[in-house]
Amino acid sequence: MNILDIIAKKRDGNELSKEEIEFFINGYTKEEITDYQAAALIMAIYIKGMSKEEITNLTLAMAYSGDVLDLSKFGENVVDKHSTGGVGDKVTIILMPIISAMGIPVAKMSGRGLGFTGGTVDKLESIPGYKTNISIDEFIKNVENIGISLIGQTLNLAPADKKIYALRDTISCTESIPLIASSIMSKKIAAGANKLVLDVTVGKGAFMKNKEDAVLLSKTMKEIGKLANKETVCVITNMNEPLGKAVGNSLEIIEVVEALKGNMQEDVKEIILELGAYIIKLAGKGNDLEENKINMMKTIENGKALEKLKELVKTQGGDVRYIENTNLFEKAKYILPVIATKSGYVKEINALEIGKISQSLGAGRLKKEDKINNKVGIVLEKKTSNYVKQGEILAYAHGDDEIKTKNAVKELENVIKISEENVEKQASIIDII
Amino acid sequence: MNILDIIAKKRDGNELSKEEIEFFINGYTKEEITDYQAAALIMAIYIKGMSKEEITNLTLAMAYSGDVLDLSKFGENVVDKHSTGGVGDKVTIILMPIISAMGIPVAKMSGRGLGFTGGTVDKLESIPGYKTNISIDEFIKNVENIGISLIGQTLNLAPADKKIYALRDTISCTESIPLIASSIMSKKIAAGANKLVLDVTVGKGAFMKNKEDAVLLSKTMKEIGKLANKETVCVITNMNEPLGKAVGNSLEIIEVVEALKGNMQEDVKEIILELGAYIIKLAGKGNDLEENKINMMKTIENGKALEKLKELVKTQGGDVRYIENTNLFEKAKYILPVIATKSGYVKEINALEIGKISQSLGAGRLKKEDKINNKVGIVLEKKTSNYVKQGEILAYAHGDDEIKTKNAVKELENVIKISEENVEKQASIIDII
Repeated sequence: MNILDIIAKKRDGNELSKEEIEFFINGYTKEEITDYQAAALIMAIYIKGMSKEEITNLTLAMAYSGDVLDLSKFGENVVDKHSTGGVGDKVTIILMPIISAMGIPVAKMSGRGLGFTGGTVDKLESIPGYKTNISIDEFIKNVENIGISLIGQTLNLAPADKKIYALRDTISCTESIPLIASSIMSKKIAAGANKLVLDVTVGKGAFMKNKEDAVLLSKTMKEIGKLANKETVCVITNMNEPLGKAVGNSLEIIEVVEALKGNMQEDVKEIILELGAYIIKLAGKGNDLEENKINMMKTIENGKALEKLKELVKTQGGDVRYIENTNLFEKAKYILPVIATKSGYVKEINALEIGKISQSLGAGRLKKEDKINNKVGIVLEKKTSNYVKQGEILAYAHGDDEIKTKNAVKELENVIKISEENVEKQASIIDII
Repeated sequence: MNILDIIAKKRDGNELSKEEIEFFINGYTKEEITDYQAAALIMAIYIKGMSKEEITNLTLAMAYSGDVLDLSKFGENVVDKHSTGGVGDKVTIILMPIISAMGIPVAKMSGRGLGFTGGTVDKLESIPGYKTNISIDEFIKNVENIGISLIGQTLNLAPADKKIYALRDTISCTESIPLIASSIMSKKIAAGANKLVLDVTVGKGAFMKNKEDAVLLSKTMKEIGKLANKETVCVITNMNEPLGKAVGNSLEIIEVVEALKGNMQEDVKEIILELGAYIIKLAGKGNDLEENKINMMKTIENGKALEKLKELVKTQGGDVRYIENTNLFEKAKYILPVIATKSGYVKEINALEIGKISQSLGAGRLKKEDKINNKVGIVLEKKTSNYVKQGEILAYAHGDDEIKTKNAVKELENVIKISEENVEKQASIIDII
């Protein structure tokens, strides 16, 4: 077997065997296959596509290219959750304490933000003292002791995926469903769960721009899950406007705490309940989705979910006083309102644009090495379909630099579009695959 | 402009602009664009193809990526000749002295052999003393003084083509007509001629395996020539069996001398006359192709062509006694006959296989660094369609290693196929484009 024949086979649109895909992944991980050979093969895959079997074999080869976490001590139904990314996505930090408070073990590794999307790890680190890079032993011990741990990716998980992911970015091969699906699924398989609930975002602030692509990606991942013996449910959710109110690290933590106190934004609530109901079902703790949702709401109402978040923060070394009193979070120097210049209905709040404005305030990274500012970001006071009167506050820009914050306000005035006609509320849950 | 957008454009099957192609070629030559980005783009070009305009722009960008030879002092009609390669191809060394002896200046750079094909430079260097790496000034001076110089590629011609050619080899992107056509034409344009006669070989020992591909490659090159203002004629020639009798460096020089004495193999003669007739026509020295052929034959018969070869060898530092008496060429240690095991007609002598056997005897290179043995090779005594009696000699294997030579004989017995049925002679000239 040699890489030239493998490249030629895919170049001509033929199906690669399991052995050929493993030969490529092993060779590339060991740097026996060069970046330019991988680039040629990835481009051929992008253009010619892959069969279900090929995608699954690629996923498994990447998953087993490095460490694979063993979570079997937590039973046969360890459920992981993943989102394909968006703006204002604080779902994990609200949802996982609820799930844990209901007696289901949560051992979850999350990522950092890059580009216009935020990352759960960055948000957690905005809680003073919270450690996201603890050892695997400590991670497992925390799950055993308190039923939950949320950390960053500390193990050498799916190194082949890391290499291919970085390469794709430099050769215009990001938007490929086989490559996106295998990348997500390889990391999830390496992370040790055997059941997966995937939040597939679609819309202006997501990778998938339309429902058709989101459905295709979902079906592809579900198929990989089936062939890899990992039961998978995909919940396709709306990411046209940012999720919830806040975009920015500590601003989102404040929204998380409010949510667990019962003051949840409608779109956040719909998504939390839908994803949670499936997690509970896949964990074998309740087949009736509506009942699962009611039980989740009870867990919020009786304070157990918030209590679990506090326990998590404390156990990970964080200062729990910030959760008890979110006023302790340091504020940005400038908090400037965005005022409605006319009355009407909010027609559009483009999530991608909001992400970019938030990034320009310092909440996100352009390059991996960039430092982020936890205090800054955007808080939306109105969402799509809301009626506003001229002079009402639409949003706040939180910034440490006066000019940047004023610029953000100006940009937000353009991005938050108001129409005289009635605007219907968009559904948060678009489909279940 | 950036390389990511250019890659994405071709990935999606769109046409690249002149500026985009130049941006890629300049960036890649200067190593501002990486090998893996070039690999992704080349693969996209391979799969999605290129328009005539794109191919021409690619050709010109590569041609002008390095030095461009100025041959204008030799007039407006400087004709170059190129072959797409084959086995036993000694055409340049026979043809160019004839052309020069007819008063048309010949300033030609040739290549070395790689893989199963031989190279004109290697063949010339088998003449003791012959220098193929003289300076450009000396090259031009020789053409001025004696009307001919045949050398290797000493200038930095089309460096972008060199990089892309080497890359294509490592990413399974060799057999692409836009890439082959632009590679050949860029080198020829950089080599300074303004009229081109191209020998496009087709068959078992050529890059192009069938007539359709050869016609398409020819039309593509002719179109590039038209758009680049270089009049181009393509002569499609048969390369199913080796050309002429000899395969191997000094063995081919011996055949060259015999040919210029008037003892030319039929297939060699047809190709020499056809290519030469067009060279003379393009040089503005005779519009009647048949008359040109007659004049070429006269130039052989009156000894002027052989005289010109001797002058060339002498001027390039070679020992002309070897041309005057080819018995001086050192012989290989073992010269073993291949005997016909049955009577019949020679049905097939696969040129690719002959090239490989010749290489295994030491006449060719597998890697660029390999040393070649000038003495070894194969001499065919029979060609396709010839009748042979059982026990007659079909060919000789010339080798310095006893076992390798004996193995070559065994392989030749299989490669030279004999059939009881009558076999028709194949045409040497397949088409003119």
